[in-house]
Amino acid sequence: MNLGRITGQVRIVGAGLLGASIGHGLRAKGVDVILHDASRTTATLAIDYGAGRAPQADDKPSLVIVAVPPDVTAEVVARELMAWPQATVTDVASVKVGVIDELIALGADLDRYVGSHPLAGRERGGAISARADLFIGRPWVIGRGEPFRRRAIEDVVIELGAIPVTMSASEHDDAVALISHVPQVVASLLAHRLAGASDAAVGLAGQGLRDTTRIASSAPELWVQILGANAGPVASVLREFQAELAVAIEALENPDAPGSRRALAEVLAGGNDGVARIPGKHGTSKQFSRLVVIIDDKPGQLARLLTEIGEANVNMEDLRLEHSPGAQFGLAEISVLPEKEATLLSELEARGWKIAETFA
Amino acid sequence: MNLGRITGQVRIVGAGLLGASIGHGLRAKGVDVILHDASRTTATLAIDYGAGRAPQADDKPSLVIVAVPPDVTAEVVARELMAWPQATVTDVASVKVGVIDELIALGADLDRYVGSHPLAGRERGGAISARADLFIGRPWVIGRGEPFRRRAIEDVVIELGAIPVTMSASEHDDAVALISHVPQVVASLLAHRLAGASDAAVGLAGQGLRDTTRIASSAPELWVQILGANAGPVASVLREFQAELAVAIEALENPDAPGSRRALAEVLAGGNDGVARIPGKHGTSKQFSRLVVIIDDKPGQLARLLTEIGEANVNMEDLRLEHSPGAQFGLAEISVLPEKEATLLSELEARGWKIAETFA
Repeated sequence: MNLGRITGQVRIVGAGLLGASIGHGLRAKGVDVILHDASRTTATLAIDYGAGRAPQADDKPSLVIVAVPPDVTAEVVARELMAWPQATVTDVASVKVGVIDELIALGADLDRYVGSHPLAGRERGGAISARADLFIGRPWVIGRGEPFRRRAIEDVVIELGAIPVTMSASEHDDAVALISHVPQVVASLLAHRLAGASDAAVGLAGQGLRDTTRIASSAPELWVQILGANAGPVASVLREFQAELAVAIEALENPDAPGSRRALAEVLAGGNDGVARIPGKHGTSKQFSRLVVIIDDKPGQLARLLTEIGEANVNMEDLRLEHSPGAQFGLAEISVLPEKEATLLSELEARGWKIAETFA
Repeated sequence: MNLGRITGQVRIVGAGLLGASIGHGLRAKGVDVILHDASRTTATLAIDYGAGRAPQADDKPSLVIVAVPPDVTAEVVARELMAWPQATVTDVASVKVGVIDELIALGADLDRYVGSHPLAGRERGGAISARADLFIGRPWVIGRGEPFRRRAIEDVVIELGAIPVTMSASEHDDAVALISHVPQVVASLLAHRLAGASDAAVGLAGQGLRDTTRIASSAPELWVQILGANAGPVASVLREFQAELAVAIEALENPDAPGSRRALAEVLAGGNDGVARIPGKHGTSKQFSRLVVIIDDKPGQLARLLTEIGEANVNMEDLRLEHSPGAQFGLAEISVLPEKEATLLSELEARGWKIAETFA
């Protein structure tokens, strides 16, 4: 029973986290999902978990989704285009220009191919970690191409709860270089500086350091592939970063030279401008007021706090927990609309909560 | 009534966020706090708010805490050392070597001075934002120096709930360059790259970009002072960053050259090593299992979730909220001890919660 807009068979090649998650999501909507993987064990496992069914001799997929590692994506897309002469074929690789270049070199039928890329969280897992709702609310880039082919992919994206975004392959690769690949390199370079630091120095670490370096814990194997596949756009953004870094270092090494303070101020103001471009909740970059509440580090405390925020009829816009090393309590940073701050502050204080800090 | 270990008068010079917060914290413990500020309006305001009392002719402080802007700290410390020939004098400036150099140049009595630095969150505010519990659980660096003088400062640090950490001025400045000042510069340089980006590109932003650039929204005026005062140590760490950045760019611009993949892998692995050095909750860097739960974006939902986690008798180690732009729901990422994951997963699913993702 298909309740949605997808009427044909969907064939998924590659039963890792992305492929199996697409399978689960589409099957939940009643779609006939054919699952194939080069590894029979992987395919069987994903099918056992309910991500799709095994291929049959009379399969006739209208859409093929290739969800294999980036370095073999083009080859598999070309093979699928040959195998299913009517089908639309897409892939979900995180870099797009290289796939098209390879497909051209392979002489593939590009009329039926439109690349895509779901920006779906952490790329860990495999079939066991797959989830029907992995894509809910996430952007999913679909390449420019033949409208009929694009529509077939868009139908899947919408069924999975993702938000379709149209971009050419090079627009996409430039965008992900900027918003994902360069931050990864920069976070890794920054975190590496800590490798030789004293315990005393890292013991002073606050939330700022934790935030700026968190993604530096990503898997090197995967990221070498991603960076290699998008090397040009990543290098180009890093070159700009490098030029401004040189200005900052020059200013710091000559702090009393004329213009040095101004150069540093411009670096910092540039950062202000940039961070203001990142869309916040509901697509806005609205500024919230924040309250920092002290909570005991035991079950139920945070729930009680949030229940009481709810009772105060204040909608929490964001929440962040912070633990102090060695301390038996935590800090909950609560963001609310500025006009709600005073109400919340007095309600919480009336209920005995200790507010560590408030700022707009 | 003084319930703690501080028996003498404490004089605080500078009634901004830090000075007034120290005042509130010490008065709550029954200490006689004298508050002075170069601005009579600021002093009166802070005294009205209860951060201390006005100076009197017969004051005899045993400890003076200088909490004025970094660029006038040494001058004020020297003046206070002269004014109170018996008193221990400290300051709370975020950079330490420069203060000592200036004090030497001013011929100050360094036997009675020991510098200190509370790593107390965001440096915003003023007296109105001051809070008695601003320092709870935070590290507070105290310089090396005469043990009797150090003890006087340590008593205050402990009364305020902070964690005393001993470091020389240069150890301190190197440490904060690494864990605070360099991350600030790097985050600003990274965020600045977004200033000219298309809306479509920034629309793909995920949590990684938000985390790596969050501190780039800091106030440029304050940070120009801090970076200027610690220019040498900051430049030195940035030079190392710059050298490795050049290697990364070289590898990206020649992705097929021998050794390029390896060079990138080493950058990424170096980041893994560095991030592993940052102490986590309770001083450990234990790895938690994480569950991502889908919650409706309305009051009470998150509280219900957390109440039910408490009912399942699972202690949440960390919590992070993530909102999808344009979506009417959020994702709550819950960290728990690995042995609690299965219990929590089944308990939450039994109560109808949708789990978007789980990973170790």
